[in-house]
Amino acid sequence: MAEAWYTCIQEDLEKVEGLMMDEIRSGNPELNEMCEYVLRTQGKRIRPSLCLLGYLACGGKDLSKPIKVGAAMEIIHNATLIHDDINDEAELRRGRKALYKEYSLSKSIVAGDYLFAIGFQLIGSSSRTIVDSVVDAAASMGAGEFNQQEYEHKGQVSEEDYLRIVDGKTAKLIECAAKCGAVLSGAEVEAVDAVGHFANKIGVAFQIIDDTLDVIGDEQITGKPVGNDILEGKPTLPTIFGMQDPEHGARIREIFEKDSPAMDEVCEAINLIRKTDSIERCRAVAREIANEAIFSLSPLPESEYKQSLKDLANYIVSRDR
Amino acid sequence: MAEAWYTCIQEDLEKVEGLMMDEIRSGNPELNEMCEYVLRTQGKRIRPSLCLLGYLACGGKDLSKPIKVGAAMEIIHNATLIHDDINDEAELRRGRKALYKEYSLSKSIVAGDYLFAIGFQLIGSSSRTIVDSVVDAAASMGAGEFNQQEYEHKGQVSEEDYLRIVDGKTAKLIECAAKCGAVLSGAEVEAVDAVGHFANKIGVAFQIIDDTLDVIGDEQITGKPVGNDILEGKPTLPTIFGMQDPEHGARIREIFEKDSPAMDEVCEAINLIRKTDSIERCRAVAREIANEAIFSLSPLPESEYKQSLKDLANYIVSRDR
Repeated sequence: MAEAWYTCIQEDLEKVEGLMMDEIRSGNPELNEMCEYVLRTQGKRIRPSLCLLGYLACGGKDLSKPIKVGAAMEIIHNATLIHDDINDEAELRRGRKALYKEYSLSKSIVAGDYLFAIGFQLIGSSSRTIVDSVVDAAASMGAGEFNQQEYEHKGQVSEEDYLRIVDGKTAKLIECAAKCGAVLSGAEVEAVDAVGHFANKIGVAFQIIDDTLDVIGDEQITGKPVGNDILEGKPTLPTIFGMQDPEHGARIREIFEKDSPAMDEVCEAINLIRKTDSIERCRAVAREIANEAIFSLSPLPESEYKQSLKDLANYIVSRDR
Repeated sequence: MAEAWYTCIQEDLEKVEGLMMDEIRSGNPELNEMCEYVLRTQGKRIRPSLCLLGYLACGGKDLSKPIKVGAAMEIIHNATLIHDDINDEAELRRGRKALYKEYSLSKSIVAGDYLFAIGFQLIGSSSRTIVDSVVDAAASMGAGEFNQQEYEHKGQVSEEDYLRIVDGKTAKLIECAAKCGAVLSGAEVEAVDAVGHFANKIGVAFQIIDDTLDVIGDEQITGKPVGNDILEGKPTLPTIFGMQDPEHGARIREIFEKDSPAMDEVCEAINLIRKTDSIERCRAVAREIANEAIFSLSPLPESEYKQSLKDLANYIVSRDR
C-alpha cells in the first residue's frame, strides 16, 4: 500500500494537536474536561492538514504560523460540531456520546462559545486577511445552517440547493484553512486561489461522501447511526437523488416530507434509496468534483506536498468512515 | 432634572446603532430578522457607551474606531444573551419573548454563533491588544458561566464566590469595552487601567442591582419575570444575603437548594428575602463599589466625559430596570 496522504506532515500535525490542547486549557476543570472530550476524539484533522499542505505546496518553509492557524481552524470546527449536534439532536459523534448528551445542553453551548473564542484568539495574531477570511467562513457557516433548515423535510430540494448549502456549511471553512496556509507562505494570488478552489471542492466531495454514509455506512465504523439525516429531514444528495427515482422516488419523498417519520419508515426510506442508483450517482458526483479539485492544482509546481493534496482528494472520495 | 449621562455621546451612540445594523446583514432574510429582533430591543448599550466615554475621557478625538469597537462589543454581548437565555430557559428578555422562544432553539444557537463571528470580524481590524483583550473577555465569560453553574442550588455559596462569578460573567466584557476605548485614544497605562478598573467595578455594581430586580423588580418595568433566579437556583447576592438572615435564612436556603422548587415556594422565598435586610445590604454593596469605581477615575483630567462616566456609575446603582 502507498504511504498515507498525511505522512509528510505527520510530525507537524502532532504539533497542531499539542498546541490545541495547550490553548484550550482554562481555570475550570470541567470546562477543560469537556473541551478535551471533544478534541481528543481524533477527528480527521482535514482543516489543519490543508492549512499545512497549502502552505508547503506554495513553498512555505517555517511551519510555526500554519500550525497556529491550523489549530485555530480545528478548534473553531469543533466548536461548530458541539452546537451542530445540539441542533441536530444527534446522539453520537465519532462513536461516542455527543457532548451535550454526556454533559448538559447549557454547558455544551457555553463550551462551544468558549472554543470559538479560543479559536479566534489564536488567529487574532495573524494578518488582517486571515482574520477576515476565517470570520467570513464562520459567518457563512451560520448562513449555510439557516439555508439547510429552510429545506428540512422539503421534497422539492434540488441538487443545486444542496450544493449551495454544503458550500456554506462545510466547504467554506475548509477552503479558508487551505487558503490561509497559502497566504501565509507569501504565495501569489493565482496559487492562493488554486489552493482555495481545490479545498472548496474537496470540502463538497467530503460532505457528499459523509451523506452517503448516512445511508450505507456501518455504525460500528462511522460512529454515527444510519438514517439520522432522513429522521431529521436534512436535505442530502443521496435523498435528493433517491427522490428522483422513477420507481421508488415518490415513496422516499413521502417519508422525507414527514415532520416526524417513524423509525420503520426511516428504515424503509434507507432501503429504498439503496435500491435506486442514488449512491452510485453520489459517488460519481463526488469523484468528478474531486477530479476538478485535483485539476485546479495545476498552477502549483510539482512537489511531495502537491502529491499529498491529490492523495487527500482521492482518500476523501474513497473513505468509508 | 440633570442631563442624562449619555447626552454628550448620544449622536455617536446612534452611529454605533447604525453600524451594528449594517454589519449583521446577511443573505438570509430569517437570519436578518432574528438578529434585528435581538438588537432592536434597545438594551442599555452600556458597553459601547463605555468604549466611547473611555476614549473621550482619555483625550481621544476621532470617534470612528471606538464606534466600531463599541458596536463589536454590543454585538458580542447580544450573542451571549441569546445563548444565556437558552441556558437559563428564560422566557422573556427586555419585555419580549426570548429569541429561542420566538424562533427555534437550533436557529437561535446558530444566530448567536453568527453574531459572535460578526463581532469578532468587526474588531479584527483593530490592534492586536484589542483583539486579544476582547477574546480574553469572551473566554472569561465562558469560564464564569461554568463557575456559576457549579454553584446552582448550592446553599453554601458565599459573597466572594458570587463576586468571582460576576467578574467573569459580566464585568470582564464591560471592563474590556472601556479599556479598548482608552487604548484607542493612545492613553498611558495608568489612564487605561483607571478606566478599566472603573468599568469592572460598575459592571459588578450593575449585576448586583440586576439581581436585586429579580427579587423586588416590577415585571412591567424590567421586562423580566420576578423570581427566575431562585427558580433556576442561580447564586445571586440577594439570595446569599437572604440565606444569612437569622430568622428567615434557613427556609430561604431550603428552597434555594431544591432542584425544582414549586412556584409557590419561589414566591415564598422572594417574600422572605424582602423581609430581611438583604436588598438594603445589596444596595449598600453596589453603592460602595460604584464609589470605588468613581474614585478610581482620579488619574484622569476633569472633563464632561469623566463627569458622564461618574453619572453613569450613579445611574447604574439607582436604576429600577
